[in-house]
Amino acid sequence: MILSIDLDSEVPIYVQLRNRVTEAIAEGVLVAGNPLPTTRALAADFGINFHTVNKAYDLLRKQGLIRLNRKTGAVVITPSPDTPFRADWAARARTLLAEAVAKGVPADEVLTTCRSVLQSFDSPHSEDTP
Amino acid sequence: MILSIDLDSEVPIYVQLRNRVTEAIAEGVLVAGNPLPTTRALAADFGINFHTVNKAYDLLRKQGLIRLNRKTGAVVITPSPDTPFRADWAARARTLLAEAVAKGVPADEVLTTCRSVLQSFDSPHSEDTP
Repeated sequence: MILSIDLDSEVPIYVQLRNRVTEAIAEGVLVAGNPLPTTRALAADFGINFHTVNKAYDLLRKQGLIRLNRKTGAVVITPSPDTPFRADWAARARTLLAEAVAKGVPADEVLTTCRSVLQSFDSPHSEDTP
Repeated sequence: MILSIDLDSEVPIYVQLRNRVTEAIAEGVLVAGNPLPTTRALAADFGINFHTVNKAYDLLRKQGLIRLNRKTGAVVITPSPDTPFRADWAARARTLLAEAVAKGVPADEVLTTCRSVLQSFDSPHSEDTP
């Protein structure tokens, strides 16, 4: 797994880390049972504070995408998309889609973008074959 | 225009306000040239600080959805979805769609949700005819 973060971005690093891991799971680069790097290893790789990595992992745990424990570290779990998740996600999707439409992007272009992103998740390890 | 905010939500109130106005524009409830309520009026309606409303309006201005000036207040503008916006939006869409897929929601269900949200924007004043 290759995670890339942008130190110049306005998006906080822990959010970027959370986003990249979430995307790696969606892409099938990470599957249930896979361990994530230790917080200290990842912090060292990026030259960031390990508390930043902890914060990202804690978000991923709250999202129900990984479990954390002292012995095994962070491990990707089998997800279960319950009703509250679906409702919350749909509300956030509504806001994000509204941003594009409000900005004047045609609805069919928005849907095409969504479709092509979803298709990119369908081809495993899409990052390796650009 | 009816804006609703949830004072118990974990989402900051200024973000909720920004989201609701963005959605109202996408829905066609607000169109270019329409004024938004004054910050003091909206703050009084919700019983919140007017700085909170200012913060929301400032975000909407930065998004290129409204203009602000002393004389006319906040007014919805004609949007122009430029290339940087499209690229930034697509990256955020990738993360949001990844959240659902990583959580185990089938890609076709995700796409169906997106399609139905976009269709709801297509019918003007959809909030008035639930």
